[in-house]
Amino acid sequence: MSRFAEPQDPAFREMNTSLGFDRRLWPHDVAQSRAHARMLAAQGIITEPDRDAILAGLDGVEAELHAGTFPFAPDDEDIHMAVERRLTELAGAPGGRLHTARSRNDQVVTDVALFTRDAARSAQAQLTVFMEALVDAAERHLDWALPGYTHLQRAQPVYLSHHLLAWFWMADRDRGRFAAAEAACSVMPLGAGALAGVNFDTDRGMVARELGFASVSPNSIDAVANRDFILDYLAAAATCATHLSRLGAEIVLWSSSEFGFLVLPDAWSSGSSIMPQKKNPDAGELLRAKAPRIVGHLQALHGVMHALPLTYNKDLQEDKEHLFDSVDTMRLCLAAATGMVAGARFDRERMSAAASDELIAATDLADLLVKQGMPFRESHGVIAGLVRESVESGRSLADVAVPALGQDARAVLAQSSWLESKASEGGTALGRVREQLEQARARLR
Amino acid sequence: MSRFAEPQDPAFREMNTSLGFDRRLWPHDVAQSRAHARMLAAQGIITEPDRDAILAGLDGVEAELHAGTFPFAPDDEDIHMAVERRLTELAGAPGGRLHTARSRNDQVVTDVALFTRDAARSAQAQLTVFMEALVDAAERHLDWALPGYTHLQRAQPVYLSHHLLAWFWMADRDRGRFAAAEAACSVMPLGAGALAGVNFDTDRGMVARELGFASVSPNSIDAVANRDFILDYLAAAATCATHLSRLGAEIVLWSSSEFGFLVLPDAWSSGSSIMPQKKNPDAGELLRAKAPRIVGHLQALHGVMHALPLTYNKDLQEDKEHLFDSVDTMRLCLAAATGMVAGARFDRERMSAAASDELIAATDLADLLVKQGMPFRESHGVIAGLVRESVESGRSLADVAVPALGQDARAVLAQSSWLESKASEGGTALGRVREQLEQARARLR
Amino acid sequence: MSRFAEPQDPAFREMNTSLGFDRRLWPHDVAQSRAHARMLAAQGIITEPDRDAILAGLDGVEAELHAGTFPFAPDDEDIHMAVERRLTELAGAPGGRLHTARSRNDQVVTDVALFTRDAARSAQAQLTVFMEALVDAAERHLDWALPGYTHLQRAQPVYLSHHLLAWFWMADRDRGRFAAAEAACSVMPLGAGALAGVNFDTDRGMVARELGFASVSPNSIDAVANRDFILDYLAAAATCATHLSRLGAEIVLWSSSEFGFLVLPDAWSSGSSIMPQKKNPDAGELLRAKAPRIVGHLQALHGVMHALPLTYNKDLQEDKEHLFDSVDTMRLCLAAATGMVAGARFDRERMSAAASDELIAATDLADLLVKQGMPFRESHGVIAGLVRESVESGRSLADVAVPALGQDARAVLAQSSWLESKASEGGTALGRVREQLEQARARLR
Amino acid sequence: MSRFAEPQDPAFREMNTSLGFDRRLWPHDVAQSRAHARMLAAQGIITEPDRDAILAGLDGVEAELHAGTFPFAPDDEDIHMAVERRLTELAGAPGGRLHTARSRNDQVVTDVALFTRDAARSAQAQLTVFMEALVDAAERHLDWALPGYTHLQRAQPVYLSHHLLAWFWMADRDRGRFAAAEAACSVMPLGAGALAGVNFDTDRGMVARELGFASVSPNSIDAVANRDFILDYLAAAATCATHLSRLGAEIVLWSSSEFGFLVLPDAWSSGSSIMPQKKNPDAGELLRAKAPRIVGHLQALHGVMHALPLTYNKDLQEDKEHLFDSVDTMRLCLAAATGMVAGARFDRERMSAAASDELIAATDLADLLVKQGMPFRESHGVIAGLVRESVESGRSLADVAVPALGQDARAVLAQSSWLESKASEGGTALGRVREQLEQARARLR
Repeated sequence: MSRFAEPQDPAFREMNTSLGFDRRLWPHDVAQSRAHARMLAAQGIITEPDRDAILAGLDGVEAELHAGTFPFAPDDEDIHMAVERRLTELAGAPGGRLHTARSRNDQVVTDVALFTRDAARSAQAQLTVFMEALVDAAERHLDWALPGYTHLQRAQPVYLSHHLLAWFWMADRDRGRFAAAEAACSVMPLGAGALAGVNFDTDRGMVARELGFASVSPNSIDAVANRDFILDYLAAAATCATHLSRLGAEIVLWSSSEFGFLVLPDAWSSGSSIMPQKKNPDAGELLRAKAPRIVGHLQALHGVMHALPLTYNKDLQEDKEHLFDSVDTMRLCLAAATGMVAGARFDRERMSAAASDELIAATDLADLLVKQGMPFRESHGVIAGLVRESVESGRSLADVAVPALGQDARAVLAQSSWLESKASEGGTALGRVREQLEQARARLR
Repeated sequence: MSRFAEPQDPAFREMNTSLGFDRRLWPHDVAQSRAHARMLAAQGIITEPDRDAILAGLDGVEAELHAGTFPFAPDDEDIHMAVERRLTELAGAPGGRLHTARSRNDQVVTDVALFTRDAARSAQAQLTVFMEALVDAAERHLDWALPGYTHLQRAQPVYLSHHLLAWFWMADRDRGRFAAAEAACSVMPLGAGALAGVNFDTDRGMVARELGFASVSPNSIDAVANRDFILDYLAAAATCATHLSRLGAEIVLWSSSEFGFLVLPDAWSSGSSIMPQKKNPDAGELLRAKAPRIVGHLQALHGVMHALPLTYNKDLQEDKEHLFDSVDTMRLCLAAATGMVAGARFDRERMSAAASDELIAATDLADLLVKQGMPFRESHGVIAGLVRESVESGRSLADVAVPALGQDARAVLAQSSWLESKASEGGTALGRVREQLEQARARLR
Repeated sequence: MSRFAEPQDPAFREMNTSLGFDRRLWPHDVAQSRAHARMLAAQGIITEPDRDAILAGLDGVEAELHAGTFPFAPDDEDIHMAVERRLTELAGAPGGRLHTARSRNDQVVTDVALFTRDAARSAQAQLTVFMEALVDAAERHLDWALPGYTHLQRAQPVYLSHHLLAWFWMADRDRGRFAAAEAACSVMPLGAGALAGVNFDTDRGMVARELGFASVSPNSIDAVANRDFILDYLAAAATCATHLSRLGAEIVLWSSSEFGFLVLPDAWSSGSSIMPQKKNPDAGELLRAKAPRIVGHLQALHGVMHALPLTYNKDLQEDKEHLFDSVDTMRLCLAAATGMVAGARFDRERMSAAASDELIAATDLADLLVKQGMPFRESHGVIAGLVRESVESGRSLADVAVPALGQDARAVLAQSSWLESKASEGGTALGRVREQLEQARARLR
Repeated sequence: MSRFAEPQDPAFREMNTSLGFDRRLWPHDVAQSRAHARMLAAQGIITEPDRDAILAGLDGVEAELHAGTFPFAPDDEDIHMAVERRLTELAGAPGGRLHTARSRNDQVVTDVALFTRDAARSAQAQLTVFMEALVDAAERHLDWALPGYTHLQRAQPVYLSHHLLAWFWMADRDRGRFAAAEAACSVMPLGAGALAGVNFDTDRGMVARELGFASVSPNSIDAVANRDFILDYLAAAATCATHLSRLGAEIVLWSSSEFGFLVLPDAWSSGSSIMPQKKNPDAGELLRAKAPRIVGHLQALHGVMHALPLTYNKDLQEDKEHLFDSVDTMRLCLAAATGMVAGARFDRERMSAAASDELIAATDLADLLVKQGMPFRESHGVIAGLVRESVESGRSLADVAVPALGQDARAVLAQSSWLESKASEGGTALGRVREQLEQARARLR
């Protein structure tokens, strides 16, 4: 019997149901129900025979869900109700005892915490593989020179290994953020009941241990109203995706005819429906385009939580689609980034030619004057004047600088000296890059 | 001498200058310059007399900035250029040596890291004060009953102490996020130069120690392209502000005539320009309204970073206003939240009357049947039927339930039993709240 | 033959394919292809027999898609390729001529424009139904008094009809925004080719007429790079959804025991898994929670477009999911809003009692003094003092005011006078509400 | 006298005051007050001498505000209170009568509507200037060839005039959006009072005419709760800024050494603090970086409005800073875009060389086969095979294609034929561009 006299309006039913998206929570729902049933029996709240009936029924439910034969019913408004209904069909009356000392409010948030924990772990694992690909690529291109850019202008030459390792450190920080999100999932909400705790002498620690939670939530109100751990996951994912959007942008840029630094493997390229010559870096573009999607989900969940009075409100049902799509997107993006880094073929000659642009040694010339005693601000002005003279006259910088500054200037304008003089800690000189590779390998161990 | 022949267009100058907002970075810029000068001298890159002249000049700069007498010049496009220009006026030629082995690219990001570190620390300190106010308020209202709500419907009664402590745990998690943001600021970018490292034998560790950084960035490219620590701060602030928006929403709701649970002190209330009777919870409303502002800044910085090729791009100048406004907003919001929690006067009678609504004991009636052996799903249906009968007939739930369920039902319908039976871990029973207060005090020690 | 030697990586294929979501564009793709084929034949670019074979083939494709029997192939990366492949299977060689003088770049954006146009029209139609429900509800509750609120404090009494009509004008403006979005879809991109126009003497106007476009895009580059019309739709939807979130918030608030102004029909209510007494306004909550979702999509599409060089980039594939989910969400929200407005049962007595709160006549008392000659700013102070005296002493405002202000004050404190004196244009006096209803009905005609 | 016994807490005062940002509304506040005073007198609500005293006082207030000598007082919490206070100091008792039949709720929103209307007009005017600059630039570079890009790969050649005009049509649509925002500001809220209308027989039409509003709001509740017109402005600005971010991105890209299509004038360029050779396209980068800022403001205002019950809530004070910063940013961005388009120096030779890349004629070769009778899908495959052969063998496409396809292929591979054959409506052939220029000029007349 329900307290309602009328059925739900079909439009309401369509808006209200979450089964379309929350069914993927089923493995967590089954695991949680098993642990809950065992605890209820251990505490004497249900009998051992009831527990056994429930566990056997849950085995059946799991098998059906796994096999895709689970008979969803029109009235199943979410996966939790579907599992409990089917359990009761399979296990009989004991199934009706499973929801003792539990509410959908704490049940749902516990399932989502388990899901998010798994997603945060997967992201860390995928990031580690990506980082390995970066280290490998850096080792293969240890001393390949290319220009470093600021403002997309050639600034100073660097080694490709050094450039690739910049992505390594971003990924390493991302891994840390996902680890923090995982930790945020380690506090078990289950046992909070609807919001105030339950009327039974439960053992939350026992359930937490079985499900792998480190602790139980200290406040039942907070437990059912809280979605922080999803925000943590989404914030980590947003930053990671933004990093990858920068990588995607460079892949696109470097694949252009004008840069020509990089050729994607055919396995990561697309053609055109009309232009037969096109080899497009679609994967790089999609990598770039996915970041706003995840940022949008993060912002949307903040919007959902905004100004919500405690405790549970139905608005919180809007947490799941934002989370699920972000997890799926993250998985694709990390796979794509790894695949492209591993498969990219760099063009040593194009990069080297670009890195030989004399103008990018201008700082080194200024520093030469500094070493001869001139204040840097003054030497900067002297060299800027030579650059202007060179640009306006069409003569090479060497032709202008050597007469003015002497033969030391010629040595400075030799390409490899520009790279190897950047020997400060974290700089691009080879010795420093080797040091950095060692640090990177240590982070992977 | 510059490499440019024409002056900047006034519209470009207006768009390009950051002095209007970055001048607040000056304390960090001066501190950084001191540490840099000392290191340059220690490494023999500048002489000791030059170092002393620079340090004396920086003292003068600092004094002028502190006193508000610093003479900004029309050509100062940012605080870094203003400080260096003025230093050179005060210290003469040695001032021109300060920028040796440094670029604005690593200088700016270092200043911002120092600023963000301070902001993250302040937020933690303010959160601690807020948490103390919550514990105090919880202790003062230990056993005051009010309804807990789900869907803004009265659900189950709780103690006000328990409700207030829910905010405590949110704030505690927020503190952890700001601590992580602080840690993200502990890697020093300075020494990365423009992007590739510098041509001098610097000692980055020495500078880092003086400025309180835990380590130096391992990759110069990443160092100048990275703004992760700002994203970390903003993500922490966004979640904290969203929490506070929920508090603001409850303050507004509870201050309404209809709820009447709470009266704000006059010190935190406003009147109306036209309606003489109004006492408005403006501070609660503003607390609510500030969250989207910070979420907007977070989203905007993600947008700025989106698809940016490495390394430094001018786009990154757009990091500061988003950060600064968020820091200022956070400071106001935490002060307001603390002030309102400390000053709020709760109305015990209004809350208690609302908590006495018989219907909110319906779960307890259902659990009574469970304890008598009925499966919960079945007992839920039985009680739902009684509720419907009560609502439709206009009779009290007791009048309907006691004949049907016996005298035990009457005991269950007595208010205090509903609260004290929620004795599971983290529940609202007084013993559990006392346990929780002890945990909370431990987090503050 | 393709220019590629290797197959696509499975991870790339998964990321790259859009068939999972773009298949719903098929009706537009078929319609477009029909019009294109007719034009090609009319211009002599293909023969009439080829055209007839294509049209017959498209009939077959359409029938299969309609019946759900269309045989998708593993290599179909999007609906456009799937349709063309299948057409060629059905129609033979002529199918291969359909893509003459067309590129996927202009084809896709044309399909999406047709889809968006339909969605904008549907939204307008649904808004009209919603507006009719509001007018009906206003007429049924013409003279029911309730408090108007500012800051969620009772401010001045209004009629429920007046309050309901406030939503009418919001919806009316929303209708205008969707009409503008529809107009933005009326410029046909087809014919722009890949980006530069095509090598054939096409007749774009003929295709535009068949597909119902008002004009053709004047610039082929803009045509394939442009997604403004989606932004226009999303901006309209975001504002509309934000309006509905405010309605949802009021439904939730008014359904609370504390307000008690409104009872949702059972058809638009939910129960609780644990609390048998609960009747929850889930539909109101979901209405509230959907707005950030659409705002998130709008923000995300801006993010996707951000800084994209011309012309087409694969990033633009990310337009569709944001659009589709927004359209589906909008449809559900407008149905829910209409259903709840039509079905809501208001509680005249609860509202009237709240509207009788004497304090909300304070402005009227101040205006009484104004009419007796006192400056408003002064009279506001006098009445504020009486309010304070009343609140502090616990006496009614009448008991305090009548002795101070005379018997006129008693007349002002009679409830209906507060409402009927708001007789300025657009005010809540009944005559004005009737005028407004007439304006509203005129907008619906 | 106030109804409050205690002063405001300083932290509350700091959070609550809006004077820091709303003072720029003063011209609108003064204009509104003049119109309101005239109407009050015309309706006999105040006397003519009172009106004259008020008008004279407002002249004084305006003069002080204009001259920067207005004496703000510590208690002025917003510009409206400041103006009224000062007016009363200058005009005596009559000043206290100005607020008759007006509330801050309708006063504020009216000021903001006037401000937004002006901002929407300015944006249209600036866009017109930008569009003129684009037409001028297109005329100057009518037949300069460059590659059109898809996926940042050279796709098909176009004329620079055609490319520049693509921006024209975006700007033209933006102008339309700002015009719609202006229209949204044309409904006057003033006269709605606090929320319910006023107790006086006002003439709202008279005030509207003086202030230039087209009509008066039909519903007082909606009038004070509505901020749609700001959302409309922000949505228009967000789309316009996103367009400009794409322009900024192309300026940055084309200014790179690798592309080399464009040199910014020195007046729109920056140098580097460390690298003397750098000439950075800072203005292009900032143009790119400003879009997320405005999108952030739009999203934030949606967040502020989200779930707000009617009518006025203090949250609405958060409308102004989002609006003001967006207006200021828009102004700078449009000036920068215009300045850069007008001043950019294009490099005809670099562009032409890039446009001569043989591969970009591949579609034209495929179309040649189509014209000889082969289905397009088949010819696409044939040419893709030749491209692959060319890429793999290192031979030119002509060397591979002419033997296979005959001498017609050689003619197709001549550059100018690729451009001039795109003669379909809206295509890049010169005749079509001239047609387009005529359409563009017509839009500017």
